[in-house]
Formats: sequence, structure tokens, C-alpha cells
Amino acid sequence: MDTGAAPIAAIDIGGTKIAAALVGSAGTLLTRTQRPTPAASDGETVLGAVLDALDELATAPGWAEVRALGVGSAGPVDIGRGTVSPVNIPGWRGFPIVERLSAHPAARGLPVVLAGDGIAIAAAEHRFGAARPYDNALCMVVSTGVGGGLVLNGGLHTGRTGNAGHIGHITVDLDGDPCPCGSRGCVEQLASGTAIARYALRSGWRPAGQDTSAVAVAAAARAGDPRARAAYERAGRALAAAIAATATLVEIEAVVIGGGVAQADGLLFDPLRAHLKTYAALPFAAGLTVHRARLGTDAGLVGAAAVALAAGA
Amino acid sequence: MDTGAAPIAAIDIGGTKIAAALVGSAGTLLTRTQRPTPAASDGETVLGAVLDALDELATAPGWAEVRALGVGSAGPVDIGRGTVSPVNIPGWRGFPIVERLSAHPAARGLPVVLAGDGIAIAAAEHRFGAARPYDNALCMVVSTGVGGGLVLNGGLHTGRTGNAGHIGHITVDLDGDPCPCGSRGCVEQLASGTAIARYALRSGWRPAGQDTSAVAVAAAARAGDPRARAAYERAGRALAAAIAATATLVEIEAVVIGGGVAQADGLLFDPLRAHLKTYAALPFAAGLTVHRARLGTDAGLVGAAAVALAAGA
Repeated sequence: MDTGAAPIAAIDIGGTKIAAALVGSAGTLLTRTQRPTPAASDGETVLGAVLDALDELATAPGWAEVRALGVGSAGPVDIGRGTVSPVNIPGWRGFPIVERLSAHPAARGLPVVLAGDGIAIAAAEHRFGAARPYDNALCMVVSTGVGGGLVLNGGLHTGRTGNAGHIGHITVDLDGDPCPCGSRGCVEQLASGTAIARYALRSGWRPAGQDTSAVAVAAAARAGDPRARAAYERAGRALAAAIAATATLVEIEAVVIGGGVAQADGLLFDPLRAHLKTYAALPFAAGLTVHRARLGTDAGLVGAAAVALAAGA
Repeated sequence: MDTGAAPIAAIDIGGTKIAAALVGSAGTLLTRTQRPTPAASDGETVLGAVLDALDELATAPGWAEVRALGVGSAGPVDIGRGTVSPVNIPGWRGFPIVERLSAHPAARGLPVVLAGDGIAIAAAEHRFGAARPYDNALCMVVSTGVGGGLVLNGGLHTGRTGNAGHIGHITVDLDGDPCPCGSRGCVEQLASGTAIARYALRSGWRPAGQDTSAVAVAAAARAGDPRARAAYERAGRALAAAIAATATLVEIEAVVIGGGVAQADGLLFDPLRAHLKTYAALPFAAGLTVHRARLGTDAGLVGAAAVALAAGA
């Protein structure tokens, strides 16, 4: 039961869906709604979908007790300016989401706290999930892309603009493949679901049916296909190098990994842990522990609420 | 002139020398002494050299006004425990330097503040040097090895044990050369003076005289030798990838680079800046500026004092 403190209103804005919820102070979703993101539409239409979700939330029981509105958004964000420029929502470039939400009648002057989606996930795992015991942790999502957020010295490390923790776009292979971000050899080019499937296909793996996703590669790997196994091994290795780099640079005690690709479980985590022994070599980095994320598909919503709580709501 | 606040006593412990100084609150060395480190001797002999330097310092004018003792040491350190285990001083493993200095009569109960040498350099550049304008910066030394320290949110980011900022040992090349640290493809294996000279020799560069150091490689590069130039180009590229990774992970506004290899100036900084345009691709990382360190060979001493000042001395 989620009793005690008043709930937080949370909105999670992604390229596919916009979700909104009332979240209790123990991290439980009390009420929830979602809409598809009209990602290809103009900015005002996208905002309309967000406000519509907020209006629906405002009719829920408990709304009168809500004390803050936490907003998690696909990045990049600029938390100083209160703006967002989600890669997959071209109608929003430097879009003043904090100002627009604050001005909406249903928000009735609530404090609006904005975070990038990687930071939101880290906030959720740190307050309610697998990162709870740690003052210094990296929380990651390995899915179609690779994202993350950092907890340092017991709090969220947002960075000046709120984009710290972009672990998917650090280079672990100087001469690696070009990345759409403009760099090369990014973790995402080696460890995302997309990258795993692409590598398996390039190595000669052929799916039994139509499904060429990382899930199909995982099934083939479990059935013993060496090319499919190699694709996960390579992903685990790239993640290990990136996690080790983080530990070496800022000192973290733990890494928490969620997202669709993490469902492959041992296929990904076994090589990751094995390679971490190599790459996290310095004594202060070597003690790092690896955990599966605790929060599920609503981690973004719980995280938006957790960010507002971390900001003092 | 360094007037006003009382001086800080500073000790800088390296594998080659032990230096000690009184440092004014504006970063000026008021009095200075040094001894060779008896690095191959037992731990008590090494301590003896440190205490001897401190005793000499205690005879200097101004000693009575000293309000803290800052100690910078080659790492790894453990600032929580107050111990050091410098790689090049095998007689010190988990050596309780803070306790032993505190107990020494000349220290007369002064607060003793310990930091790793990378953090000390960052403290020096942040308080007195090129990192002064920035709340978020990476400060590096590129020399025989590669080290560093981080300034985040306006303060030093030490990490839990004081070893954060070990930029020389993050992997930028998954399949790179093994590093003595146990990992592979570390920045230090590509960008240290040692690595630059090794790469040039491997590529077929032959020195005019006996000198096979990175300084000789720099002279050859300036004279037009393409293999020598390529060695610096490769170092600059590795540094760019590591700096970009740092910016992408924690958001930094600036990087400050000192140390012997940085003296090669454009030979190193030109490729570094050029490759940073590729690797620091995300908008929040792309604005990062590159600076030469301001503090010279006594940066470690000034830094030991700056760490004590940052701790509230």
C-alpha cells in the first residue's frame, strides 16, 4: 500500500508514446494513462497530446493532493532552460515544455521538474530499485538504443544541461563504425538491439522466420548458433569497456542494466561480467557489481516522479 | 605579493621526489624544499624522507600561521582510510600516511587533507589556473603516464576513495594493446610520452642520436618526419576520444592539459582539437574548450595546498 505523502504527477515523453500517471511516494502507479506520440506532427500537436494526458490525470482521485509534476523526456534536453529537443520528435527543437506545462490550467501552478529519460531511469532505480543501496551507480537501458544516468555522491548527476550519463555515445572503439550522432565506435553501435541484430546478420546468421530482431538472435544463440552468440558476446564486451570507463573516471560501486536487450539475461550478462574483469582493472574500479534493473516498462514514469522527489517535492 | 590569509603547508609525494612547501592563499610558493624519494626502500625509510621535509618546512618563517597540511600522493590512494599505495613505491601498500603525519610533532595537530596527484592537479588548475572559469572541467597531465582529475558542479569530484579522474586508464580501443594495469586499449597506451615514442619506433622512425624519447619524436615531427607526426596524431586522437567520453558521460565545459607531452603544443593539440570535432558529437558535449595548463612543474605542490583549501582550510 502506498500511503503517507501526497502523490507526484509524472509524464514520460518518448518518440512512440506519451504516458502520464499519479505516482505514490513509494513508487507505485496509482493511476495511469497513455497516448501514441504524434511524432511526425508539428510541435503544437505533440504538446496537445501531452496536455490531453495531463487533463485526464487531473480528473483522477488524489489529484488535489498532488504536489509536483515530474517530466521525463527523450533527449537532448536543457534543464536550465526547461526545453527539450527529442531526436525522434522533429517538431520539438528547443521546445519550452516546462513553460508550456506550467501555463496549462490543469497544472495549477505545480512545480514542474524536467529530466532527460536516462536520468529519470537512474532516479527510479536509485529511489525504488536496484541502485537503492548505492551512493555511486550507473543505471543503463540497453534497448533499440543505449542510454543511462548517473548517481554520484548519493544524488543524481544531471550535468549542467541535464544530459550527463549518455553512455550509449561514448567511444570504445577508436576506429569503429560511424554513429548517426556524428562520432564513431559508440557503445550503441556495438551493444544496442539494433547493433546486435546487424552484426549477427553481417556475420552470416540467417533467421528461421521473418524476425531479424535481437530477440530472434537471442533465440538462435540459445539454440547454439555461434554467430548469434558472438553478437551478444561483442555487445557484452562493449558494455564492459564502457562501464569500466565510467568506474575509472568517476568511481561507481554498481551498474544497473534494464531494457529489452537485458532480457537476454546470461547471453548478455555472462560476457559482460567476464570482460569487466579485464577492463575494470584498477583496484578502486574492480569491486563494481552488476545488477538487473528492478523497474519494468513503467520505469520512465516512476523515474519522472523520482526526479521530482529528488528535487525536493 | 601573497598577503592576507595564512599559508597552507603542502607535501607532494611522487615516485621520484618528495617536495614540500608553504603555499600562500593566492597559490604562490613561499618556501620550498625537496628530496629524492627512496622509492626502493622500506616504508619507514620513505616516511622518514617525508617527515624530514616536513621538519625543514617547520623551520620556515610563517610556519606558526599555517592552518592545514595538504598532501598529494601518487596513487592509488584511499582518502576515506587516509592510506596510499603508490605504484612506484612498493614499500607503501595501504600506508597510513594521514595518521603518521598527524602524529608527527612538527604537524602539531594541523588538519591533514589527502588527495591523489590527479585530483591535486585539478584542484590547482581550478583554484589558480586555466580551469578557474569553469564549474565542470577535466584536468589532465600527459607525461610518462596520463592522469587527471575532475571538477564537477563547481567542486572537486574525488570519488569515494579519491581515485576518480583516472582518464589514462579508460579504454578507447576495445582490441588495443594490453596495459600494465590489466586492461587493454587504455588512453595511456596510446597517448603517453612512452607510447608516442614506442609507436614512432615501431613505425620505423629512427632517432638522429641516442634520444628515443617523445621529445626527440617531436623534433623529428617538426622536421617533417611523417612517422613521427603520425605518432602525435594518434596520441591526439586517443585523447580526443577520451575527453569526448568524459564530456558525454558527465558534461564538462573545458579540458585543461599539462605535462611534458603537452609541450609538443600544436603537434599534439592540433590533431586533438580536430578529432574532438568527431568524437564530441552530441550538442551538449560539442562546445567543450581545450586549454593548456597554467601551472608548471610545481602544480602538484600548489594542488596539495588547493585541496586543503577546497576542504575548507
